[in-house]
Amino acid sequence: MINQLGNFLTLSTFGESHGEAYGGIITHFPAGIFIDFDAVQHQLNRRKPGQSSIVTQRKESDTIRFLSGIFEGKTTGMPIGFLIFNENQKSKDYNHLEDRYRPSHADFTYDAKFGLRDYRGGGRSSARETVNWVAAGALARQILPKEVEIYAYVSSVGNVVCDKSYSELSLNEIDHNDVRCPDSFSAEKMIEKIKSIKKSGDTIGGTITCVVKNLPIGLGEPVFGKLQAELARAMLNINACKGFEYGSGFAGTMMKGSEHNDVFKADFTTETNHSGGIQGGISNGMDIYFRVAFKPVATLMKSQNSVDKEGKASIVEGKGRHDPCVVPRAVPIVENLTAFVLADMYLINRLRRI
Amino acid sequence: MINQLGNFLTLSTFGESHGEAYGGIITHFPAGIFIDFDAVQHQLNRRKPGQSSIVTQRKESDTIRFLSGIFEGKTTGMPIGFLIFNENQKSKDYNHLEDRYRPSHADFTYDAKFGLRDYRGGGRSSARETVNWVAAGALARQILPKEVEIYAYVSSVGNVVCDKSYSELSLNEIDHNDVRCPDSFSAEKMIEKIKSIKKSGDTIGGTITCVVKNLPIGLGEPVFGKLQAELARAMLNINACKGFEYGSGFAGTMMKGSEHNDVFKADFTTETNHSGGIQGGISNGMDIYFRVAFKPVATLMKSQNSVDKEGKASIVEGKGRHDPCVVPRAVPIVENLTAFVLADMYLINRLRRI
Amino acid sequence: MINQLGNFLTLSTFGESHGEAYGGIITHFPAGIFIDFDAVQHQLNRRKPGQSSIVTQRKESDTIRFLSGIFEGKTTGMPIGFLIFNENQKSKDYNHLEDRYRPSHADFTYDAKFGLRDYRGGGRSSARETVNWVAAGALARQILPKEVEIYAYVSSVGNVVCDKSYSELSLNEIDHNDVRCPDSFSAEKMIEKIKSIKKSGDTIGGTITCVVKNLPIGLGEPVFGKLQAELARAMLNINACKGFEYGSGFAGTMMKGSEHNDVFKADFTTETNHSGGIQGGISNGMDIYFRVAFKPVATLMKSQNSVDKEGKASIVEGKGRHDPCVVPRAVPIVENLTAFVLADMYLINRLRRI
Amino acid sequence: MINQLGNFLTLSTFGESHGEAYGGIITHFPAGIFIDFDAVQHQLNRRKPGQSSIVTQRKESDTIRFLSGIFEGKTTGMPIGFLIFNENQKSKDYNHLEDRYRPSHADFTYDAKFGLRDYRGGGRSSARETVNWVAAGALARQILPKEVEIYAYVSSVGNVVCDKSYSELSLNEIDHNDVRCPDSFSAEKMIEKIKSIKKSGDTIGGTITCVVKNLPIGLGEPVFGKLQAELARAMLNINACKGFEYGSGFAGTMMKGSEHNDVFKADFTTETNHSGGIQGGISNGMDIYFRVAFKPVATLMKSQNSVDKEGKASIVEGKGRHDPCVVPRAVPIVENLTAFVLADMYLINRLRRI
Repeated sequence: MINQLGNFLTLSTFGESHGEAYGGIITHFPAGIFIDFDAVQHQLNRRKPGQSSIVTQRKESDTIRFLSGIFEGKTTGMPIGFLIFNENQKSKDYNHLEDRYRPSHADFTYDAKFGLRDYRGGGRSSARETVNWVAAGALARQILPKEVEIYAYVSSVGNVVCDKSYSELSLNEIDHNDVRCPDSFSAEKMIEKIKSIKKSGDTIGGTITCVVKNLPIGLGEPVFGKLQAELARAMLNINACKGFEYGSGFAGTMMKGSEHNDVFKADFTTETNHSGGIQGGISNGMDIYFRVAFKPVATLMKSQNSVDKEGKASIVEGKGRHDPCVVPRAVPIVENLTAFVLADMYLINRLRRI
Repeated sequence: MINQLGNFLTLSTFGESHGEAYGGIITHFPAGIFIDFDAVQHQLNRRKPGQSSIVTQRKESDTIRFLSGIFEGKTTGMPIGFLIFNENQKSKDYNHLEDRYRPSHADFTYDAKFGLRDYRGGGRSSARETVNWVAAGALARQILPKEVEIYAYVSSVGNVVCDKSYSELSLNEIDHNDVRCPDSFSAEKMIEKIKSIKKSGDTIGGTITCVVKNLPIGLGEPVFGKLQAELARAMLNINACKGFEYGSGFAGTMMKGSEHNDVFKADFTTETNHSGGIQGGISNGMDIYFRVAFKPVATLMKSQNSVDKEGKASIVEGKGRHDPCVVPRAVPIVENLTAFVLADMYLINRLRRI
Repeated sequence: MINQLGNFLTLSTFGESHGEAYGGIITHFPAGIFIDFDAVQHQLNRRKPGQSSIVTQRKESDTIRFLSGIFEGKTTGMPIGFLIFNENQKSKDYNHLEDRYRPSHADFTYDAKFGLRDYRGGGRSSARETVNWVAAGALARQILPKEVEIYAYVSSVGNVVCDKSYSELSLNEIDHNDVRCPDSFSAEKMIEKIKSIKKSGDTIGGTITCVVKNLPIGLGEPVFGKLQAELARAMLNINACKGFEYGSGFAGTMMKGSEHNDVFKADFTTETNHSGGIQGGISNGMDIYFRVAFKPVATLMKSQNSVDKEGKASIVEGKGRHDPCVVPRAVPIVENLTAFVLADMYLINRLRRI
Repeated sequence: MINQLGNFLTLSTFGESHGEAYGGIITHFPAGIFIDFDAVQHQLNRRKPGQSSIVTQRKESDTIRFLSGIFEGKTTGMPIGFLIFNENQKSKDYNHLEDRYRPSHADFTYDAKFGLRDYRGGGRSSARETVNWVAAGALARQILPKEVEIYAYVSSVGNVVCDKSYSELSLNEIDHNDVRCPDSFSAEKMIEKIKSIKKSGDTIGGTITCVVKNLPIGLGEPVFGKLQAELARAMLNINACKGFEYGSGFAGTMMKGSEHNDVFKADFTTETNHSGGIQGGISNGMDIYFRVAFKPVATLMKSQNSVDKEGKASIVEGKGRHDPCVVPRAVPIVENLTAFVLADMYLINRLRRI
């Protein structure tokens, strides 16, 4: 359903960059689950701006406030309403944009589609909306069996690529550096890259790899509900996301079937895992892994040529907050969106046999 | 919604490889549209097996039969029910598979999830299901304005890559060769590649590029309904699809913002189109283009090691039909799925202003 | 969702009175259930026209044909596609109606809404669509625990009212007479009433009472999913249905709280059951019971004044098939629609605790 | 969809009687509509407790706060998030109910279904949730054409029945008395009735009639989306609602077809309107009218016998707030829910022809 994440476990959200608050409603959260509130706030803090010198500096506490659906620490099965107030809106920073269309932003398409737009900070098109998703994902994660582990990390920044496989990395060290790449050698080069890009007032793209371990077998639906399709849909909704591949991905197109096929062992695990943990749209118990592409952020600290509402040449100045590379902060977004999708498919899977 | 394509214009389907028929129901098709039945059958014919020496040889006429929703040649607004009978099921070919799990197929995951499976020809996991999607997409296409053009073509087979941009190709020549690559030089090499793969009983992957021209501005929704996300979801539901990227895609992650941003011209077109025709999740009037990755088909004409239901070592023989490379036949699938997604978003867009 | 019955277990349908076939797709039917096909056909036979002298005489075998989702007698969890062919369409009977609007039929509203209509036998507005619902409901019933009993019966025809409570009736004797009222005294008077109405070429309304016994506690959702609301929605979709009341219903509006409240016993059953087995939208283990109102069928065997498409006075002749009273044949419709709604809520309820 | 109102225009809500706030999210509200905020607050004020001596006395300002989707007074097409804070929760009033099940309340079914419940003031089962619906309905009303008029009024309290037809009443005088019956003669008797019931610590049921004038032709869908079914579903979700009938309703079951059929005039209006403005599930331009039944409120100001969680005999004391008759305050609920349903169907109808 458009404007909703999830199929049975659903998330509806609202909020604009310079409105009063973001928030959402999660429906069909099972009753009787003790909520670990710190775990939710921890994920929100990971996404928060201003955590290091290489990310945007907007100051927000991003404190979540639950309004319903939880009683004496446990979920009641009722809709969970939550709010995250905006604290650092400086609308006047954006007044100069009312009539101007920033390149590669949503300004023009929103105006064309809706006939008007909230131009302050991008309004609904702001990536600040992802705060809702992180909150909801961090909650949904608590539905999944304890042994399920979800890791996202930065696997490239521009042309600085971490060429180790996820299995060679210490996935519990992702947050050990500012760029969130668990390979300290690559991380250092990535940070350098971002710093130099930042200095020039420019931005740079990157990729995130996500790995899910110990997922139960059976998540995903045969047709129009394949696990990879639900994940792809979620990821492609993230601002700046340009691509998704899982398992062998685009590189797998070069392979022969005899190389690509994952041979079964006696315990139904497979010798290789080009399938990325999904066969026929359904998790097979092997690690799920996928990669997500992010373009460079469109807001530069440089003046750019553009046009105004009338199509007249106009300069978009390098004002506002600078996010030289979006991927470090996108790590918790990918991770928690994944958790939400998995929790939804996990619940649905429980109804497929009786 | 799982098990459904589309949000307002919806497609529900059923069918298994060796059942009696495939079929579907399309809801909310607008009333009063004269249906071009030949156009629908033409698309089905393009997907049909046995069209050339380089694709699978199952014999099916794939004739569509409409059961409702059309009266005196025009849609009535009522659900459109349709059927496509299976004519060439040879169930006995598959009896040997009842207890065996073919590598990188859905055999194991279906059994694990549902407790049983229709093992004949893969049952519901067979790519023959795409016949429903091509039919529905070919109908949905007739909702879109006449000037909208949708082209899909093979852009690589294994390591044979057509390195021309779509804008350098004659997109109306896609069907001029068996491999459906409009660059005759690349096409020849691709065909050679497939023939050699076929001879060895093996299979090979590939990519498809899809281009949409003259799409109205405004299709797609701001959050959880972004046009690229709806397209990605549709594509990742195609059997063997491993990845999706649009516009600059994965390559765009290497770019700087100052290179990547698409500068506006006075008429609101842009000088470059790294955005792939979508900004903020909404079509901006430029060409939409995206690329879809397909792994090599898992069925080989070679014996492979595998296991049976009890986990005992077992040989999967190279029987059945050989589809050495899936991408030529996937071209109409990508094209018509795209048409369906666009028609759905086109209708929804009409309600966003009043 | 419009054009769909059910929320998780869903039914999509198609078909028109004079099309080739009716049919539907049921999604999310759990895997592993042995289908009792005779039970399904039995319910279809109960709805079939031409069973007695007091109902319409259209000749249809109403034989159902399953196309998918069932393998070796058991459900596979895949969508269940089914067809019921029309065998007795006499389109020419209706040619005279192309330009005329029959009073209290859907002719005018369909034309006004869609700009055209399939006028043959009412097209999609024909009550023959209920054949799909009976089929789907008879299948869905097989999901419910064996001990659940669902009974519908005729509780009034015109002013002939069976004034016994359902608890005084032998609910397994419903089919013992043509009118499907288990009180033989009332039944006789009802049949007389219908025969006399039939003779005059007129029609008469009536009511159906439905009772559900041994339903598990917990079906229904707190808000926008209350069990009574899902039942009401289903019933009001039946052609000619004009009202729904459950438990004490409209009569309960005259009562005082101290009379109406159902006092609990030690085993959580209640001494009275004005609540009709539902409290707070959720089944409480007591009998569910509700009553459904049906207006007299609009097609008379008498000429009636009407207008044509241009608004000119026109006569609608008393042609076609005569159904003097719809309620006897609506009994299996109410019963099986109820089964579908309950099965849907039964599945959903399994996800509300973990 | 369960836990949602509407099909395209949707409302998701959250909130519990003694939580911090109620609230909701409306999706797909069209862009560019100037919101009349006073009209929304006016409807909320009509529903507010404590307006007269005959309704419950909980003190709430019920001030709505919009958090998104509106910019410079106009809708932007983005989700509209809103909040209504609870100000008068006295949770300690309800501590005595933690282990006790009030008769004909949701206490037992919630506990049985979810394994726990927020027992303070009924938690999610409280009718205070309707504050969300009134807010959403009052907004949705602003989508409908200006000439559409929606009136709900009290048509009976216990056995005091206003026996005039709606067409004989001054529908703009509904709020002229505390009981909201526009027939001053009946109103006086109803108020007397409620006062006497209140004095005895008891409660009484009643009915509400709703009338819609000047509705465009074409709202409603042929099958599983009939206008009456969408209305019935909405109404039966109101706490204490026990029945719904439209047009001739239950009384129509006594009529003959020749009496009941609505004969067309040259302008396609009909001479009578037993159809209640809906034919074939679709509005025909005549007045829509329907009647909704409400049982007596279950909370009495008298001690009642009941049981506790262990099934032991227990007394439920007559504490808390007394609402002797729910129908006066249910009037704006019925009216605004109707507005929401109509706005949803109005939008959908715009897509049914192209």
